[in-house]
Amino acid sequence: MNEQAEAAKKSTLLMIPYGMYVLGARNGDDIHAGAVNWVTQTAFKPPLVAVGVKKDSDLYAALRASGTCALSFLEAGQRDIAFALFKPSKVDGATVNGQAFETADTGAPIISAAPAWVEGRVVGEVDTGDHSCVVFEVTNAGAKREAALLTLEQLGVKYGG
Amino acid sequence: MNEQAEAAKKSTLLMIPYGMYVLGARNGDDIHAGAVNWVTQTAFKPPLVAVGVKKDSDLYAALRASGTCALSFLEAGQRDIAFALFKPSKVDGATVNGQAFETADTGAPIISAAPAWVEGRVVGEVDTGDHSCVVFEVTNAGAKREAALLTLEQLGVKYGG
Repeated sequence: MNEQAEAAKKSTLLMIPYGMYVLGARNGDDIHAGAVNWVTQTAFKPPLVAVGVKKDSDLYAALRASGTCALSFLEAGQRDIAFALFKPSKVDGATVNGQAFETADTGAPIISAAPAWVEGRVVGEVDTGDHSCVVFEVTNAGAKREAALLTLEQLGVKYGG
Repeated sequence: MNEQAEAAKKSTLLMIPYGMYVLGARNGDDIHAGAVNWVTQTAFKPPLVAVGVKKDSDLYAALRASGTCALSFLEAGQRDIAFALFKPSKVDGATVNGQAFETADTGAPIISAAPAWVEGRVVGEVDTGDHSCVVFEVTNAGAKREAALLTLEQLGVKYGG
């Protein structure tokens, strides 16, 4: 791309709106969770969700090894949880980076404070880039309360472009 | 999933925020364009974008055949364009469903009224569901003006769950 197209690519991709989520994966005793924003549904039947996951992360390794993951939806106001989960995972009892987690069918960590979550099994990925586009089928979900999603914009962070 | 998990899956996936875009593909003289909302970036290097595309659509067939596509970003206020492009593509001269289009490197149709667009070549897909998660590498982009993206919420439409 020339300089003009490169600049247009950057500004245009930054227009895409995002929510904030915590992706969790467990490989045996190895538990990882990380804040992510590159998320979209990609099918109704079966219900599929795509997530962009950094390939050089321990989270990605655990997700690949287990073939399962959980996605916790963060609520407006839960900026502290998002920022805590930007850091490498440190598990202490039933907390990861100081945030209490619980598990459901897959065993992947779900942030207890999150108003809603889905979990499931990986059905495929496109791993061409520095992040892999991981697609998982939602096999279980929980909604604790109605809530407005925390957005990347509210977080004051740019991740894209 | 049991009934409770099914309901939670639906309400939770509906929390994901979306913008509105027009996905375009051209296979020879066969030109198709359709409004889509399931879009996320999935990598920086190379810049990859994932789009959920209905597999029984002519748009998907043209995208598969050509291996390229364009994604026009709609602006707040361009609801009429989104609704026009929900219908099957009818091309008349340089218009599709009454909306003027232009082309760039890939030949895929770009909505002329759109404030910004990207185009590129398909690098992979996960086609397990009723929609395929198509991942393309952005190889060209244009930004005509700064604009706020039209959101699915502004459109008053739900597509997800």
